[in-house]
Amino acid sequence: MFEYKTRVRVRYAETDQMNVVYHGVYAQYFEVARVESIRSLGVSYKEMETSGTIMPIVELHCKYLRPAHYDDLLTVKTILKELPTNYKIEFYHEIYNESGKLLTTGKVVLFFLNAITKEKTTMPPTLKDKMAIFFQ
Amino acid sequence: MFEYKTRVRVRYAETDQMNVVYHGVYAQYFEVARVESIRSLGVSYKEMETSGTIMPIVELHCKYLRPAHYDDLLTVKTILKELPTNYKIEFYHEIYNESGKLLTTGKVVLFFLNAITKEKTTMPPTLKDKMAIFFQ
Amino acid sequence: MFEYKTRVRVRYAETDQMNVVYHGVYAQYFEVARVESIRSLGVSYKEMETSGTIMPIVELHCKYLRPAHYDDLLTVKTILKELPTNYKIEFYHEIYNESGKLLTTGKVVLFFLNAITKEKTTMPPTLKDKMAIFFQ
Amino acid sequence: MFEYKTRVRVRYAETDQMNVVYHGVYAQYFEVARVESIRSLGVSYKEMETSGTIMPIVELHCKYLRPAHYDDLLTVKTILKELPTNYKIEFYHEIYNESGKLLTTGKVVLFFLNAITKEKTTMPPTLKDKMAIFFQ
Repeated sequence: MFEYKTRVRVRYAETDQMNVVYHGVYAQYFEVARVESIRSLGVSYKEMETSGTIMPIVELHCKYLRPAHYDDLLTVKTILKELPTNYKIEFYHEIYNESGKLLTTGKVVLFFLNAITKEKTTMPPTLKDKMAIFFQ
Repeated sequence: MFEYKTRVRVRYAETDQMNVVYHGVYAQYFEVARVESIRSLGVSYKEMETSGTIMPIVELHCKYLRPAHYDDLLTVKTILKELPTNYKIEFYHEIYNESGKLLTTGKVVLFFLNAITKEKTTMPPTLKDKMAIFFQ
Repeated sequence: MFEYKTRVRVRYAETDQMNVVYHGVYAQYFEVARVESIRSLGVSYKEMETSGTIMPIVELHCKYLRPAHYDDLLTVKTILKELPTNYKIEFYHEIYNESGKLLTTGKVVLFFLNAITKEKTTMPPTLKDKMAIFFQ
Repeated sequence: MFEYKTRVRVRYAETDQMNVVYHGVYAQYFEVARVESIRSLGVSYKEMETSGTIMPIVELHCKYLRPAHYDDLLTVKTILKELPTNYKIEFYHEIYNESGKLLTTGKVVLFFLNAITKEKTTMPPTLKDKMAIFFQ
């Protein structure tokens, strides 16, 4: 299993008039967490794209247990339970506030696609080699 | 069953560098569609809030089948399969492009809460009376 | 002078915890208004881009006189005071609420660039021909 | 003069199909920079709000000199040239990329308002005392 924690500070722009983070914003928190999790392995998603592999999101699932508030310093956990063997990768996310309360859980499913042909492909070896260590 | 269709035009701001609508933006399209669906019954969500009932989102589920693109005039369908009997309401959504292709499906679960006490409540009678007609 | 009015409904996502529209969101309202103003002339900004002319924003100026609120049906006016003679175009915007109160004024400066070379160019003839009528 | 530098990493969500950061997003970068600049003085904008002073934005001005791109680690400078003497405060901003190139300049004008009465007020002493040191 691969796990990584990132910090995200809630922006004023991300709140709504219910005084909480707008539910659609969590997609961005998950995005930041995924990208930072692979950066922690020395891999840049930006470079993956320019090297020819894009990762469009095909599913997003969120459960909002407790609201996040303005200026909260959130901890966003990224969890990869299985090393992908085909064109699909599933990330799980958990968001905690500074008191350690679990606020949100999420699951994001992405495909590996060839940036040019848009055909399904598999995880680039540069990433797979780094990830594989966590699944031995 | 209650069904309603709304139109939403994709903004440039909503695209990302993959030349598609960013996946987190769909939460907003679903929001617009829900609000317009109840407005079609003569009920304003804004007034519901000022009358003391708020509806926080507790779950969001999206499947992205095909991408939406800049300037697409999307049709967002809102479907209520069951009239809620307690504090919970489940909306289903489908998004189609101008060629009638299904791009996205979604499910959004909301609670009815008392705006002051934040305690669970039920659908306000003003809305329930209008909705009930579709479930006879 | 060319003037055009568009309607935009404020989304919940666009409010912040001050119970008003977040100030950065107005850039999107102005965008929608510009695009609809040229669509009213039979010209699609999307097609302009695919035909090889992009219009990046180089300046944005907003004055917030009164706040816009959730669910407000705003009227966004787009004003072109002068027909551009070079690579630069300046749009003025005014946003009114349903009571006719002026909420926001704005000015947005854009360049005409060749989509491939990114070099400065001028307004495409398809748009200029339609615009010119308003400046005779 | 008071100056402070903050880092902001560009999110995928913040790009648009021109492969650059959408111009409306800079309002958020400036917001983050202002809030972090006063946090560096030991003052929390969140606490200022709960203590009764809100700071709505009344003007926003941006000049976009060069585009910011996905995953850029931006340095956002916040500059206060004068200590406010009344209800108005003017922040200047400059955004640099990792090569030290100036991408964007901005100016944001805010008011100090009483959170309850919405009447104009002045900078809270907790902040003014900390700020004053930079203007002696």
